[in-house]
Amino acid sequence: MKNPLLLVFPGNEALARALQAQFPARLENLVLHRFPDGESLVTLPAIEPGADVLVVCSLDQPDSKLAPLLFAADTARELGAGRVLLVAPYLAYMRQDRRFHDGEAITSRTFAAVISRHFDSLVTVDPHLHRYHDLAEIYTIPARAVSSAPAIAAWVHREVHKPLLIGPDEESAQWVEAIARLEGLPHTVLFKTRHDDFNVEVSLPDAGRWAGHTPVLVDDIISSAHTMIAAIGSLAKCGFAAPVCVGVHGLFAGPALAELKAAGAARIVTCNCVPHDSNAIDVMPALAAALPALLP
Amino acid sequence: MKNPLLLVFPGNEALARALQAQFPARLENLVLHRFPDGESLVTLPAIEPGADVLVVCSLDQPDSKLAPLLFAADTARELGAGRVLLVAPYLAYMRQDRRFHDGEAITSRTFAAVISRHFDSLVTVDPHLHRYHDLAEIYTIPARAVSSAPAIAAWVHREVHKPLLIGPDEESAQWVEAIARLEGLPHTVLFKTRHDDFNVEVSLPDAGRWAGHTPVLVDDIISSAHTMIAAIGSLAKCGFAAPVCVGVHGLFAGPALAELKAAGAARIVTCNCVPHDSNAIDVMPALAAALPALLP
Repeated sequence: MKNPLLLVFPGNEALARALQAQFPARLENLVLHRFPDGESLVTLPAIEPGADVLVVCSLDQPDSKLAPLLFAADTARELGAGRVLLVAPYLAYMRQDRRFHDGEAITSRTFAAVISRHFDSLVTVDPHLHRYHDLAEIYTIPARAVSSAPAIAAWVHREVHKPLLIGPDEESAQWVEAIARLEGLPHTVLFKTRHDDFNVEVSLPDAGRWAGHTPVLVDDIISSAHTMIAAIGSLAKCGFAAPVCVGVHGLFAGPALAELKAAGAARIVTCNCVPHDSNAIDVMPALAAALPALLP
Repeated sequence: MKNPLLLVFPGNEALARALQAQFPARLENLVLHRFPDGESLVTLPAIEPGADVLVVCSLDQPDSKLAPLLFAADTARELGAGRVLLVAPYLAYMRQDRRFHDGEAITSRTFAAVISRHFDSLVTVDPHLHRYHDLAEIYTIPARAVSSAPAIAAWVHREVHKPLLIGPDEESAQWVEAIARLEGLPHTVLFKTRHDDFNVEVSLPDAGRWAGHTPVLVDDIISSAHTMIAAIGSLAKCGFAAPVCVGVHGLFAGPALAELKAAGAARIVTCNCVPHDSNAIDVMPALAAALPALLP
């Protein structure tokens, strides 16, 4: 790699510094000006000829970031960058991976196509892969998905007394198991039994086995927090203590954070993928480790 | 052209109906849902195989519209559209046509490149062409710029008693002259004399000639309205009555409309390019006339 420059989109300063601690590089802010008429202008620092430019921009609230992000990529190249890589610890638009109703856009595909045309490569952390199994199904540039599991496992092992890792629903089973295995932690998953449209019973098999353990709920995205809040209620019914809630990507849309606190979370922590006060688990060592392969 | 469908972006209903009055086509709303996490989803109606889809979306406040606009274009094609045309009576990002300061993005080029990759053709009204002389310098798709001059000239001739068309600065001279010529209206332009950074004198040659005329200020974009407001002040000093203010594109950023009223505009009217209560001049006949050449 050549004279790497971390070009920081506003709001991403803390995670860019955490990345710089693992990946020696010049760090400069991208200046973003938004005009009253809704246009934006970005201004970049001087770029050394042929330098690798890493645009650091997590993609929460993606619509407002898309235009300035594309401006930044094109301008970096015009100013002499060799390669332009997108460092987006949270990658947006992964959930709309099919047409769920007639006429709907498959936004994941268009978004991936646009990003792929303006950047040379992409690195992210635990993208929401459900129907897609690999970013390469929609991104046509080299795209690397880094796992947050080692950082989460180490944090739980260090910070939580007698932890029991719990997936809030059956879909999270594999995910929670992968984290638990890394540190040899016990784990389980909440099961939903749907009686009818309005009655869903959530249960934990063998709840009695876990007396004295601290429940740790883990999910990839906390957006509305409805899944976490339902899980907290179920754990209380099973006689558990208030759980620690861990999210890889804390989007906390609208009143989600306040509602999650009110529901009884003992502690709410997230990885530093989406900049937020709850960031406590540093995934930048894993992200930094992925960079040499993308910038050979 | 084949089974044309006007696909209306939210907020553009009135101008789409005005276009439909001149251009017989099916008219359907594009449903735009914005999620709390800042992603958007668009849903399209059924599209007849091979139909020409005209996405009607004026591009004021462009950053928030870009992602859904690209989703709409791609989805229209996936659902069977033959050609997908963008009807953007106001075209954004035309003013940043060079790097005014080191490191700045030339946003006009990136924006044009993105639109050109997702749409087959484009029609707009009086784009702000300053250093560019033709949309073809940055748009790689067939792009047609329609003139609002005939509609403005006809409106002024019909609505204003003894009008005197006035350009608010020397840059608007050609523009105002073109409108005036169409209906044989008198016209002039305000001249700026800059004494130093803080003292600019604005004057109107032969102000005395125009006693009894109604001043009509005309400009292409009213955004902050500062240019119009300065011109109103100059006209008052020259002894003119309160002017009629005409804009092709009324963006009215922030407090612009209130400030323009407070400055003493007798009447504020705009073309129906950017949806606004001030829309009074219908440019859709001119826009409709340009469509057959784009959809042969």
